[in-house]
Amino acid sequence: MKLLIDKRGKKYLLREDVEEFHTSLGVVKLSDAKPGDKLRSHLGHEFYLLEPTVVDYYDKLPRAGSIILKKEIGPIIAYTGIGSGSRVVEAGTGTGALAIYLAHIVGSEGKVYTYEIREDHLEIARKNFAKAGVEDRIEAKLADVRQGIEEREVDVVVFDMPDPWLAIPHAYEALRHGGFIAVYNPYIEQIRKAYLAMQEANFKDKRVIEILEREIEVKKVGTRPKTRMLGHTGYLAFGRKY
Amino acid sequence: MKLLIDKRGKKYLLREDVEEFHTSLGVVKLSDAKPGDKLRSHLGHEFYLLEPTVVDYYDKLPRAGSIILKKEIGPIIAYTGIGSGSRVVEAGTGTGALAIYLAHIVGSEGKVYTYEIREDHLEIARKNFAKAGVEDRIEAKLADVRQGIEEREVDVVVFDMPDPWLAIPHAYEALRHGGFIAVYNPYIEQIRKAYLAMQEANFKDKRVIEILEREIEVKKVGTRPKTRMLGHTGYLAFGRKY
Amino acid sequence: MKLLIDKRGKKYLLREDVEEFHTSLGVVKLSDAKPGDKLRSHLGHEFYLLEPTVVDYYDKLPRAGSIILKKEIGPIIAYTGIGSGSRVVEAGTGTGALAIYLAHIVGSEGKVYTYEIREDHLEIARKNFAKAGVEDRIEAKLADVRQGIEEREVDVVVFDMPDPWLAIPHAYEALRHGGFIAVYNPYIEQIRKAYLAMQEANFKDKRVIEILEREIEVKKVGTRPKTRMLGHTGYLAFGRKY
Amino acid sequence: MKLLIDKRGKKYLLREDVEEFHTSLGVVKLSDAKPGDKLRSHLGHEFYLLEPTVVDYYDKLPRAGSIILKKEIGPIIAYTGIGSGSRVVEAGTGTGALAIYLAHIVGSEGKVYTYEIREDHLEIARKNFAKAGVEDRIEAKLADVRQGIEEREVDVVVFDMPDPWLAIPHAYEALRHGGFIAVYNPYIEQIRKAYLAMQEANFKDKRVIEILEREIEVKKVGTRPKTRMLGHTGYLAFGRKY
Repeated sequence: MKLLIDKRGKKYLLREDVEEFHTSLGVVKLSDAKPGDKLRSHLGHEFYLLEPTVVDYYDKLPRAGSIILKKEIGPIIAYTGIGSGSRVVEAGTGTGALAIYLAHIVGSEGKVYTYEIREDHLEIARKNFAKAGVEDRIEAKLADVRQGIEEREVDVVVFDMPDPWLAIPHAYEALRHGGFIAVYNPYIEQIRKAYLAMQEANFKDKRVIEILEREIEVKKVGTRPKTRMLGHTGYLAFGRKY
Repeated sequence: MKLLIDKRGKKYLLREDVEEFHTSLGVVKLSDAKPGDKLRSHLGHEFYLLEPTVVDYYDKLPRAGSIILKKEIGPIIAYTGIGSGSRVVEAGTGTGALAIYLAHIVGSEGKVYTYEIREDHLEIARKNFAKAGVEDRIEAKLADVRQGIEEREVDVVVFDMPDPWLAIPHAYEALRHGGFIAVYNPYIEQIRKAYLAMQEANFKDKRVIEILEREIEVKKVGTRPKTRMLGHTGYLAFGRKY
Repeated sequence: MKLLIDKRGKKYLLREDVEEFHTSLGVVKLSDAKPGDKLRSHLGHEFYLLEPTVVDYYDKLPRAGSIILKKEIGPIIAYTGIGSGSRVVEAGTGTGALAIYLAHIVGSEGKVYTYEIREDHLEIARKNFAKAGVEDRIEAKLADVRQGIEEREVDVVVFDMPDPWLAIPHAYEALRHGGFIAVYNPYIEQIRKAYLAMQEANFKDKRVIEILEREIEVKKVGTRPKTRMLGHTGYLAFGRKY
Repeated sequence: MKLLIDKRGKKYLLREDVEEFHTSLGVVKLSDAKPGDKLRSHLGHEFYLLEPTVVDYYDKLPRAGSIILKKEIGPIIAYTGIGSGSRVVEAGTGTGALAIYLAHIVGSEGKVYTYEIREDHLEIARKNFAKAGVEDRIEAKLADVRQGIEEREVDVVVFDMPDPWLAIPHAYEALRHGGFIAVYNPYIEQIRKAYLAMQEANFKDKRVIEILEREIEVKKVGTRPKTRMLGHTGYLAFGRKY
């Protein structure tokens, strides 16, 4: 894939074989261009051509429904210690945004096992994995994580599903000693049930957090947080097996 | 290294060759124990033995001064797309907490170049890198990033220093097209100067954010955010080269 | 005035002499109705008739530009101790929203002195004071508070203006011993200047705060903060003369 | 009462007849001093003498258990429109901090009816009312608000109690048309029950909010929110009768 950006910052994720791209700022010829080039449309507007990164795949790949935001992906990675070589179980896949992030981090020596019960979502997700070039690091399964997790000795389990408490005992089974679980859920009652299920399953170091991200405006007249803000996405519950 | 945890959750990071460890809950014999084992002190208290992960190294390695928190490490990773194989420049090293996290993520195919002007800090950092087993992925330099950055075509530059604006033009030079810069600073005036320096240096997609993390208590009587909260650590400014 | 509310919660502030009111939910006859009555439009939709309170005047009176929100009016009252009988100086008037709130609280034994340099705003404000029935408790002045404050021994001074630091020495002169100043400003640089001007003017007990209000959704499926949130309105700086 | 303040900002609430006061900064003679005076202790340290305001009574009067903070008192006043002349029912009294604030605002033409089931608390509260000079504006009752509210046509009802939902139907009976209810509770489950009880009782314009107050530090080196922050006190649920 390649990433085309117009002068207003609007980004287009294009297949490698696209030779000419039509935008409201004119037609851009891509046949001889390489990443890092500055191009001009036939109307004279400037465009940038980049090699897309995981951030761009996340932002631009097709979605179905809401996806877990980078604002929560960050803490999931930082608090569970996912890194190069990690083996991670994730459910549900959705359209694969989180799995792509995780695959980018675990690298070719790691693996992401992702569970999804909806075949239509899994199909979109698999296409997205291929586009993002991480399909060899992800094993995408049409399976219900509430029925069990096949993997053993995994480093981290991440749940983004409506009823995570039903799968938490399986997560405990799947994890190695010292491994972490992370659960994402928008509702306080659900995250409480997840927390209590972790307690039941003997998880240690349990905590529930919520991340608020404020954007700051740097204007000539002065500096201030933005008037509009994303008020809430979800809670994160963490636990560790030992 | 190995990680010993007592029943209250207190953690001890120990060298591999420690055979016996004295705590207020009694003496624990470690000679025949392996990660995942449950041990008992001579007073009968339970202990867990684990292989430490990046999270444990971060929590337990020696520090000098304040370090950038996981709450900010998460967004730095998620918003810049650092992953397996990434090449990252970082300054200042401090005692190496962020570098260890990044090294854990970039893996053996990536590299972290970390700049520090204080020799005493760098010395502690180098020892910490060795303890965490990531010394081969980190090039630690006694050098002033405000005087220049030697690397080229790096994926990400991260600054945690009092005067980041002085190094931002060098960051632009060091980055590949499409690469990201992240700047951390506790003060609004300084982050503003960093933002304006990014603008001057022609960075795109600039934004300044602040991350608030609220901890939620799950108690029998009910659920609520904790009374005490970490009110502020620092701001994060991001930009991208294209 | 009277307050008409439709079944969706939409509110209309009407003059006492309005006998018939046309809405998208039909025509409502008001001639024989009294506060507390439930009415029906000619289309059969339910309406409520109420005597408006300060909250309704605040919400429904004509505005020009942005006004200070209840979320900040609350702390201004609570932290300065404005009450029945208080004498308060306020600037700038704007269209009078804050003055109406304060007048409602200081009552017939107190007084609000409000300064405004724009004649057009003051004209709207005066009409609003009359509509809200508090014109006898407010002295509205076409005057520049940066040039001086005529009143002496007042209990509280409140500034909502772009350059409050220019008026802070006058506020000190106007206040009685033990009296409070409150300054509202959206920008961090301006609130800092106000704080430093308070310090220069010998104000004690100085503090700067910011109020964040999160709205919580109670839904069948569960409870959670709302997705959208008002991210920032302004900072409040407080000081006390002694 | 009179208020003595030392040079470090420490405040002492003293009876009118105290003629000499001993502090760690020396003995202060108060016999000839009047509010506004600057005094010196026998050790030469400066003291200020002020007439206490509602803010001082709130800060310095004896407490039993936690009291509702000014950060929540502010929004209760601003969102319910309590003002001079208002008639307010409040429960539970506790040691009277909120009742004193409300009495200060409703003035001699208004009234605060406060319900408390613990005789010991009510006794402290009554003494506090007398000290703050607002006893004629408050009717303090040893009675259980869950059994009923005697008053009718009141403007506002405020509940700070563990099980507010049991009293919400009585609040509806007590309120005039257009009147407001405000409920304070630390737990999300309880505030949800209060909200649902308001719905059941036919309250309109219902909303639940949480107030976060951030304190900003103005230091030479720069400006920033404070490191430590009060993370949570309680939620506020509001409703209106019509």
